[in-house]
Amino acid sequence: MKAIVNVFLKQGVLDSQGKAVHHALDSLKFDGVNDVRVGKQIILDLSAADEASAKAEVTEMCESLLANTVIEDYAIEIVS
Amino acid sequence: MKAIVNVFLKQGVLDSQGKAVHHALDSLKFDGVNDVRVGKQIILDLSAADEASAKAEVTEMCESLLANTVIEDYAIEIVS
Amino acid sequence: MKAIVNVFLKQGVLDSQGKAVHHALDSLKFDGVNDVRVGKQIILDLSAADEASAKAEVTEMCESLLANTVIEDYAIEIVS
Amino acid sequence: MKAIVNVFLKQGVLDSQGKAVHHALDSLKFDGVNDVRVGKQIILDLSAADEASAKAEVTEMCESLLANTVIEDYAIEIVS
Repeated sequence: MKAIVNVFLKQGVLDSQGKAVHHALDSLKFDGVNDVRVGKQIILDLSAADEASAKAEVTEMCESLLANTVIEDYAIEIVS
Repeated sequence: MKAIVNVFLKQGVLDSQGKAVHHALDSLKFDGVNDVRVGKQIILDLSAADEASAKAEVTEMCESLLANTVIEDYAIEIVS
Repeated sequence: MKAIVNVFLKQGVLDSQGKAVHHALDSLKFDGVNDVRVGKQIILDLSAADEASAKAEVTEMCESLLANTVIEDYAIEIVS
Repeated sequence: MKAIVNVFLKQGVLDSQGKAVHHALDSLKFDGVNDVRVGKQIILDLSAADEASAKAEVTEMCESLLANTVIEDYAIEIVS
């Protein structure tokens, strides 16, 4: 079973990497870019029994290690 | 229009951040983790005319700025 | 002239990457590690007239782009 | 004892994050920037007996976890 975790800075926390990429795209003459956000994607290969237990386990991983929940949000997708 | 770009180290290139997370999960007693890969997710908000031109533009962005194609692969998803 | 900028999460902001590395080192049996912090180091090659103007310029770069001063601290070193 | 580890992409490996920051600085009208490189700085607090054993231990950490030595170089500084 595969779990895909996306971790992004919360809305309202300045994303300086996204800002750098945005300015860089401007300077390279890419028009029509309104916003850029840069986050982390973590792909886990798991031997969980079922989707529910995989999701519960990965939620715990996010809370205890993968995300800093004060400044970051995370989203989990289980792909069987 | 939104473009989601996932950038990951190519298979065969050691992913030291993924390895660190994997060992950390082991040490925190998360069992059943077979593999961990850590990549970058870039979310772009674009004012492109249509999906095809958005994809073409983002491909160019990846080739010229967002990915290091010698060591990284990228995948683009357009969400309208 | 070279400027070295170190950007780190402020004390009190959980450093999840540092935590992952710390746990990973534990799991690899490296003893005697009390703390791990992971930050960014940015090395700039500049054609500034003198050290003072280089420092002023880089400070402005940090404030406007390189660091997110709400959650991160930065330190600048000018190497001539 | 404190160990400071700087990890950078090897010369010749395209540094896409450095390139993004460089273009962003251009677009923000910072002149006189010739080159930008972005790396990782890892600060370890260690209870090693002496500087030599600290250095040996951190070298092993770099080789086994902190750096991907195929594409990255690392430098270690021990601060007592």
